[in-house]
Amino acid sequence: MVKQKITAGIDIGGTNTVFGFIKENGECIYSSSILTNPYEEADKFISRLTKKIKSSYKIYSKKYSLEGIGIAAPMANHFNGTIETPSNIKWGKVNIVAMMEKNFGVRVAITNDANAAALGEYYFGHGKGLNNFIVITLGTGLGSGIIINGNLLYSEGGLAGEFGHTIVDSNGRHCNCGRIGCLETYASANGIRRTVLDLMAIHIEQSQLRKIPYSQISGQLINDLAIKGDPIAVRAFQYTGEILGRALANLAISFVPEAIILFGGLADSGDLLLDPTRKHFEKNLLKIYKGKVKILKSSVGNGMSAVLGASSLISGEIKSGSFILDINNNVEKHN
Amino acid sequence: MVKQKITAGIDIGGTNTVFGFIKENGECIYSSSILTNPYEEADKFISRLTKKIKSSYKIYSKKYSLEGIGIAAPMANHFNGTIETPSNIKWGKVNIVAMMEKNFGVRVAITNDANAAALGEYYFGHGKGLNNFIVITLGTGLGSGIIINGNLLYSEGGLAGEFGHTIVDSNGRHCNCGRIGCLETYASANGIRRTVLDLMAIHIEQSQLRKIPYSQISGQLINDLAIKGDPIAVRAFQYTGEILGRALANLAISFVPEAIILFGGLADSGDLLLDPTRKHFEKNLLKIYKGKVKILKSSVGNGMSAVLGASSLISGEIKSGSFILDINNNVEKHN
Repeated sequence: MVKQKITAGIDIGGTNTVFGFIKENGECIYSSSILTNPYEEADKFISRLTKKIKSSYKIYSKKYSLEGIGIAAPMANHFNGTIETPSNIKWGKVNIVAMMEKNFGVRVAITNDANAAALGEYYFGHGKGLNNFIVITLGTGLGSGIIINGNLLYSEGGLAGEFGHTIVDSNGRHCNCGRIGCLETYASANGIRRTVLDLMAIHIEQSQLRKIPYSQISGQLINDLAIKGDPIAVRAFQYTGEILGRALANLAISFVPEAIILFGGLADSGDLLLDPTRKHFEKNLLKIYKGKVKILKSSVGNGMSAVLGASSLISGEIKSGSFILDINNNVEKHN
Repeated sequence: MVKQKITAGIDIGGTNTVFGFIKENGECIYSSSILTNPYEEADKFISRLTKKIKSSYKIYSKKYSLEGIGIAAPMANHFNGTIETPSNIKWGKVNIVAMMEKNFGVRVAITNDANAAALGEYYFGHGKGLNNFIVITLGTGLGSGIIINGNLLYSEGGLAGEFGHTIVDSNGRHCNCGRIGCLETYASANGIRRTVLDLMAIHIEQSQLRKIPYSQISGQLINDLAIKGDPIAVRAFQYTGEILGRALANLAISFVPEAIILFGGLADSGDLLLDPTRKHFEKNLLKIYKGKVKILKSSVGNGMSAVLGASSLISGEIKSGSFILDINNNVEKHN
């Protein structure tokens, strides 16, 4: 019997690391996860992950053959295969691609989580059939993955798409990056939490949020209260959409994508965030672009966009002359 | 005798239309110009231009064969070969590519002026050997041409790179586009003139500029006075560089180019503009990018960058899978 090809997709997050076995048509035949433990050393984590994937693969190995492994991770550099001092995991610079290739004997490739989400949308979501679009991940921070002419945008050195660090107000909020006024201090799960503080200081309306310490206010809680009509929570989404919509209009002036796809925790709030974002996006767009760029919510289910996108680093159709091909060529140097 | 191939490059500006015959190595063997006359109808202008080019070509036609014509123009759409209601010339929508092809019987292609300048730099200037860079044209307004992976960035519909209309201050200056706070209302020849007004209102310093009506203050005059140390003129360049440097830092966060090349009238002021631009660019850049992106002045001589770039629409080495190829294919549909 000829074995069917599968690839493994791995999405390394600050809390959980999710992986799945993906068939060529994008179907995930198995998925599981391990806790990330941000204080564990990288080689111990990688050996735990390897063990878990190998034991999961055992029962599939008769019918399927593992062709390669794609990894999505914060601060990932696809050119040299490393993860470099991610802010939520206490690692230094780790060549995870070389280590995983040694452990599995198959090709391994890596890209950052927002780029992986963009690939996930490109092959399996709203990005299917589009050649120019942007994926914005709204998690703890704000990440961006940009597809231009059907290729993922990278630049020399593997860095690009740090759109979350666009300065939107140079007299604004302090950012982890050491600067002031970055977009992600407004438009992200942490950003909307800070906005709640701002709004409680400005307005005199009653709000459930006044009874809860800041440390316990989550994006999810703000979402739940906004649905119930809590005025501060409702305002928080409107303000977040205003800042995000305006920033996306500026981005669209340089790129003019066919669509902007929002992904991650805050995007799951749906129209609460999408309505004000669309309104302020259109309002701030150049006339000639108005009505031409769609703002959509990710359609890839269960937060698996990055896992699927990571697996497509190996399995994705490789276009002639594409940058995606270059990635794989670069990674192969580690063999 | 085998004739050498040449292409014609044309740069249609609001005041002058410059053209040249360009050999394959980029050498311009002849250049001339006609006045644009913004109130003349398009077909009369095109017939004047055709006559002038044909009579100039006559003496070269024994030794050279004209392979095609590349045009750089404001509001040019390379996909359908049109110029659409440019703000400085009183035309409607004109299919100049189809008209010129009929007149000359050779392939004609068009792109906007900033894109042509980017191609000029790519083939003949600082962009040689670079795969990712941005050209900013600082004329009456601010234009942008972006090269990514060795290809000119276009998007669906042929629009892209309207970076001059990035909003940098939503409470700022009114723009011709109908919005408020666009970058080009600060960083352009008109922008620096408006800055002079602002600075004279704020400061009490003596300045030659206080004796000259606004209508007679040009970018060139501000340049000349700044060289002589006029305090308002000096401040005007510092402020322009501050706004431009900050905006470019935000752009670089999404693109991470190898270089940003400044071109056009204001850029000719050299270090007067480049020093403050570089300073505020570096200051506002994410740490990981600091020192990695060069800001350069165009090295293509005599403002011929757009003429050379336009001619390269025809003669440029066409890469496999490149977008430049698509342009020509699209344009050929008019045959």
